[in-house]
Amino acid sequence: MAEALKIAVAGLGTVGAGVVSLLARQGDLIAMRCGRPVTVTAVSARDRTRNRDCDISGMAWYDNAVDMAREADCDLVVELIGGSEGIAKEACEAALDAGRHVVTANKALIAVHGAELARRAEAKGLALNYEAAVAGGIPIIKALREGLAGNRILSVQGILNGTCNYILSTMRDTGRAYADVLAEAQHLGYAEADPTFDVDGIDAAHKLAILAALAFGRDVDFDGVHIEGIGRIAAADIQYAEELGYRVKLLGMASDGEDGVMQRVHPVLVPADAPIAGVEGVFNAVVTEGDAVGTSVLEGRGAGAGPTASAVVGDVMDIAAGRMAPVFGVPVDRLKPASSLPIGHRHGAYYVRLRVFDRPGVIAGVTAALRDENVSMESIIQRGRDPNEPVDVVLTLHETDEARMTRALDRIGQLDAVIEPPHMIRIER
Amino acid sequence: MAEALKIAVAGLGTVGAGVVSLLARQGDLIAMRCGRPVTVTAVSARDRTRNRDCDISGMAWYDNAVDMAREADCDLVVELIGGSEGIAKEACEAALDAGRHVVTANKALIAVHGAELARRAEAKGLALNYEAAVAGGIPIIKALREGLAGNRILSVQGILNGTCNYILSTMRDTGRAYADVLAEAQHLGYAEADPTFDVDGIDAAHKLAILAALAFGRDVDFDGVHIEGIGRIAAADIQYAEELGYRVKLLGMASDGEDGVMQRVHPVLVPADAPIAGVEGVFNAVVTEGDAVGTSVLEGRGAGAGPTASAVVGDVMDIAAGRMAPVFGVPVDRLKPASSLPIGHRHGAYYVRLRVFDRPGVIAGVTAALRDENVSMESIIQRGRDPNEPVDVVLTLHETDEARMTRALDRIGQLDAVIEPPHMIRIER
Repeated sequence: MAEALKIAVAGLGTVGAGVVSLLARQGDLIAMRCGRPVTVTAVSARDRTRNRDCDISGMAWYDNAVDMAREADCDLVVELIGGSEGIAKEACEAALDAGRHVVTANKALIAVHGAELARRAEAKGLALNYEAAVAGGIPIIKALREGLAGNRILSVQGILNGTCNYILSTMRDTGRAYADVLAEAQHLGYAEADPTFDVDGIDAAHKLAILAALAFGRDVDFDGVHIEGIGRIAAADIQYAEELGYRVKLLGMASDGEDGVMQRVHPVLVPADAPIAGVEGVFNAVVTEGDAVGTSVLEGRGAGAGPTASAVVGDVMDIAAGRMAPVFGVPVDRLKPASSLPIGHRHGAYYVRLRVFDRPGVIAGVTAALRDENVSMESIIQRGRDPNEPVDVVLTLHETDEARMTRALDRIGQLDAVIEPPHMIRIER
Repeated sequence: MAEALKIAVAGLGTVGAGVVSLLARQGDLIAMRCGRPVTVTAVSARDRTRNRDCDISGMAWYDNAVDMAREADCDLVVELIGGSEGIAKEACEAALDAGRHVVTANKALIAVHGAELARRAEAKGLALNYEAAVAGGIPIIKALREGLAGNRILSVQGILNGTCNYILSTMRDTGRAYADVLAEAQHLGYAEADPTFDVDGIDAAHKLAILAALAFGRDVDFDGVHIEGIGRIAAADIQYAEELGYRVKLLGMASDGEDGVMQRVHPVLVPADAPIAGVEGVFNAVVTEGDAVGTSVLEGRGAGAGPTASAVVGDVMDIAAGRMAPVFGVPVDRLKPASSLPIGHRHGAYYVRLRVFDRPGVIAGVTAALRDENVSMESIIQRGRDPNEPVDVVLTLHETDEARMTRALDRIGQLDAVIEPPHMIRIER
């Protein structure tokens, strides 16, 4: 059997400990599959004295991940520190500069500095693998980079953030309000103490930018993602969506059309019988559309020690077995320049909820604004009829241009009887 | 750029023509992704004069695939002839003996002779890739062989035959009878003139045996698959299932438990809200359970020129890029010997439909037979109440051993008032 692949693991949180444990537990199987053993020779973390769920005896300890990446006796560095800047980035750069392969679970790093790191890796013939950065339980990076590589990918979309999906699923199941469910998710450990990255859609946008780069052979363009989070989704929206035959999901969507690439993360209404509508709780799913293969759907757990470790170990095993692919599917100097269409170019259907005082003429004002923008109505629901209390008016609009919709909503928001800015959610069929 | 990978294509039916076209259409992309072009140098088929949907000018023509595999100027042979014996097998053997890689879409060949061919390939350091053999639109072979390779796989199950799934979906949608829907499927081209392989479950069993070998690192054991087709499913069963909150699907299921591996293909009732229940029409889906990753679901088109060509081209590109893996995930001489548990070892719930004359005492006879085998009833539905016409009695039974269930059903079938052998469908939750 060939010599062992020696790896150094930077970061020993839940995922890092999971990786070290999985490599140990599955050692024989991994050696058999790869034709050589995989050995952890070094680890680094902030606090050496902390108790961990993995055995690190016999491994060299480094307090500093960058030192480890540069100096440790290893062929490969696994980076599990996180964050797009600072020590994580420096450790990956140091590893590549020192001729070590890199495996990372760091979506922010790849989304922001992916092309630059890919250039360093490819210049030296090194691997930069990041399956765990996008939906750990789903081998979507490998599917796009290798399995579906004979296709021109037309679109990729998915439920990319388990925290948001858990919150929206729970709101639907229980009828409870966003803030209430978020607090519970924090208590249960499904949401961070500072949930901003998740609930504001930034985490999903990192993942989407990576998928779009891979799918379309273009530079990663995180800044070009239109991002809206789930904070404005009310219990009422979820209930109305249900009545209309839809479910509310936070989707990341990227498409490569005639006008260019559009990348967006925002809440959407999807038909209740669409495959993606059934993906509930902490599960992630990615739907790809290829010119030859048609539609494929991949679903699995998005996060957690097990799925993430599984993805990291899969990446490590590819390197151990000598299986390499360009970081973004095509060599980095052949990536098309990134430029993304603004959300104003969207064409589609819309859901709008208005809080209005039910006075004579209010619906006339709303419909006039829509008519003037040539936006045509599909349905209207009005609930309640109390002259002293605001009521909900819910509209669904046929396909139209986002720009028209925005202008119509501006005008509707200025009507006297309309007491809150209109709540708009895009419909994806 | 490196030298072209030269490939020879055996079989120019819909899929063969699809492969040749896709390689031509995506030539630039493929070369960029693989670091070298892929060129078709030779083709073979039975009838040279037939019109085809692909341009084969400039390619050497062979009437005989085995001659081509042996003699053509190529690095790789794509086998798209089909069938477990005869010319397909000989062509693959000849290719490997001549030092050429093999890519095949032939599930029967891999299910019956997979280990033997793998031995030939691995002895010479050649690839034997067969992504297209199982659910073309789903990169499940790659997922099991590489992406999830760090896991011990506990079970794999799926909807593996699009024809059966189309028939069952259509029966549900329309309430029509099996024979009627099958005839229509044949007319539409979704079922073969001789549909035996599909509707009797043999095609699904081929695929399941391949998945089980890969998932559990064991020899392929097609003969060890318990197989039942969909021919006995009545419109009434589908309707009762619906009422009970289930859908009827033909599933292939393999699990690696304490007692050993069980492989089975038969109709099942699955809960209507299970992910696999929503996979309709010609779509396939595969659900895997790994010890680290948990549940993953992959869904896509199972057959057709596009999805199959996509899978074949993906396999070819792996070889062009130098990405190799053991044929069944571990080296063939490390595969565990195949032995599969008989269906009598199943433990689970059951649905039973009886045709009975509604006479006093009939239910007492049925329940006594169940009681004597210690099988406990979950629900009972009786429809109609005409003393002169047979009526349906539908039972669901709590989890029990298949052996007990079989004995109870034997006794129930012998009751005077029961006028047909009991219709039993296993329930999978």
